[in-house]
Amino acid sequence: MARDGIPGGRLCAIARTLDVLADRWGFLVLREATLGVTRFAELRDRLQIAPDVLTDRLGRLVEHGVLERVPYREPGSRTRFEYRLTPAGEDLKVVLGALQQWGDLHDPVAEGPTMVRRVVGGTRALHVGFVDRQGREVPPSEARFVPTAAYPLAQ
Amino acid sequence: MARDGIPGGRLCAIARTLDVLADRWGFLVLREATLGVTRFAELRDRLQIAPDVLTDRLGRLVEHGVLERVPYREPGSRTRFEYRLTPAGEDLKVVLGALQQWGDLHDPVAEGPTMVRRVVGGTRALHVGFVDRQGREVPPSEARFVPTAAYPLAQ
Repeated sequence: MARDGIPGGRLCAIARTLDVLADRWGFLVLREATLGVTRFAELRDRLQIAPDVLTDRLGRLVEHGVLERVPYREPGSRTRFEYRLTPAGEDLKVVLGALQQWGDLHDPVAEGPTMVRRVVGGTRALHVGFVDRQGREVPPSEARFVPTAAYPLAQ
Repeated sequence: MARDGIPGGRLCAIARTLDVLADRWGFLVLREATLGVTRFAELRDRLQIAPDVLTDRLGRLVEHGVLERVPYREPGSRTRFEYRLTPAGEDLKVVLGALQQWGDLHDPVAEGPTMVRRVVGGTRALHVGFVDRQGREVPPSEARFVPTAAYPLAQ
């Protein structure tokens, strides 16, 4: 499906972003990063993820500029690395927030939401939505995707 | 990874939404649905997807209320079905739009964007972002995810 005729190929921006995240593990590593979990051992323990899979997903996120690999050293230990969200990684919070609110709205569980969205330094609730250039929100039913001249599939 | 301690389990709304979409094919079927491509044969031909995979992904999206299966009949043919976005499916456009704008901003290709976001019935450009209850947009760097009491992993 990674062809250039568009379906899941490089011309589709949706597919390119999914490539960066790779699979569910990529999304979960990113989720933990947004919570401030930055160290390999902590990610491994919290996600119960196989170390080789975690190494691969972190490498992919670093390679694509989503996470930055920063050395740190604790007394008596060798140098290790932590993984911090970059500005591009911050922008992916929009994707996570959109997935999160959809799951809580349309496929809720009895326990209720396990995470909510708030403004930094405050308690104002946030959601994710379509916004125009004047900063006005538009409901999803009034948003449309329009193929450009670069879109190779006939409509 | 589908455990109940949260990482990729039912308590995580991000994981639940990813379950509905299953894999890249689910996202691509949804992308086509937002463009008004509703029929099995057309989806199969445009996506170059194996029929059994398409059947599975459509079934999953119908089961979770994202698509509605509607019968139609052309003269001289047997009854067939088309797959239309439901209101819950419309809400998933926020997820697609977020993936799309991230890929075009942070992993662009020389050809430029193949799809853009516009308001229905107009040309106003739209993007996807965090919005508070007063309708004010907040940049991703000022949005945070906050675990609730239902979140089982210690912070």
